[in-house]
Amino acid sequence: MDNKIIAISRQFGSGGRTIGKETAAKLGIPCYDQELIEKASAESGLSKEYIAESGEYTPHSGWLANVFNFRSVDGKSVQDDLFLIQRQIILDIAQRESCVIVGRCADYILKGNPNCLRVFIHSGMKKRTERVVQVYGETDESPEKRLADKDKRRKAYYEFYTDMEWGKAENYHICLDSGVLGIEKCIDIITGLY
Amino acid sequence: MDNKIIAISRQFGSGGRTIGKETAAKLGIPCYDQELIEKASAESGLSKEYIAESGEYTPHSGWLANVFNFRSVDGKSVQDDLFLIQRQIILDIAQRESCVIVGRCADYILKGNPNCLRVFIHSGMKKRTERVVQVYGETDESPEKRLADKDKRRKAYYEFYTDMEWGKAENYHICLDSGVLGIEKCIDIITGLY
Repeated sequence: MDNKIIAISRQFGSGGRTIGKETAAKLGIPCYDQELIEKASAESGLSKEYIAESGEYTPHSGWLANVFNFRSVDGKSVQDDLFLIQRQIILDIAQRESCVIVGRCADYILKGNPNCLRVFIHSGMKKRTERVVQVYGETDESPEKRLADKDKRRKAYYEFYTDMEWGKAENYHICLDSGVLGIEKCIDIITGLY
Repeated sequence: MDNKIIAISRQFGSGGRTIGKETAAKLGIPCYDQELIEKASAESGLSKEYIAESGEYTPHSGWLANVFNFRSVDGKSVQDDLFLIQRQIILDIAQRESCVIVGRCADYILKGNPNCLRVFIHSGMKKRTERVVQVYGETDESPEKRLADKDKRRKAYYEFYTDMEWGKAENYHICLDSGVLGIEKCIDIITGLY
């Protein structure tokens, strides 16, 4: 198995998805993100929209958890099942081909794979708020609030399904501040490491 | 002030000091580490050995703290004075010339300086224990114990004198796993960012 995988975790608004896509394009390999969700959707029978949302929610998130987190007979929630389906898809992809995988705890799932480069992309609050408004447009909620909410969910999801701390340098092979270094430079560095 | 500073924090045994020295050599700029201690020593009148040790001890480190942490009339400990002296030296150097500075919270001290690149070097336990034995030789204490002790001190010192978390990705512009990427690759990446 000589496939090389680049697994990218990222703060919301850091440009991590763009970095993943452009790195993959430069290297001539596929980038899995939305595609991954579609595969999981097809396999589980759940709607794409539900999966896209749930991918960042942890099962225990408030007093309504028991109402909304339907559990199967073995005690697993729908989110747990979804995590296991996505996990298997990620393992299958890594077995099959070289690629970039953005989010979905791929860095953790492929931790035992010596050919997986684990990357974390982050950026200062100011740069991220600018990017969020630029990429996703204005909403009633302030960009700072949207950033804080999204990061909180990603961190909770990551730490619920892994035994690692999100954003802790030693969990990744390389962490980059895309706001200071620039997205192009980040792509160059990751491409150079491949 | 167009001086460019590279401030390197590092886990013990990660090769961070070597990376700092070789990056500086490659860029033709000075690297401050031992030199910094000597300057602080000359300025404070304290011995080099005392400073080299104290640089990684926090003032409150046990029930003997009051015995050993002599305090001046304004309530500051000798370590506090030393931190302030080192801080001033780091600010002066950054004002004067482009350079690499290893350790001593330089990344925090120069946080407001837009021309300072903040770097964190880390590595897995196995690679670090190998390196510690190779560089510093065998001792009665296991290399794992030496690593844990040194990291604990650096983390405590850093977090005592700064309001930041040691080793948290978002505190640095770039974090590199020297064990997986290799020391040469780390030097190349940092040099390329300069």
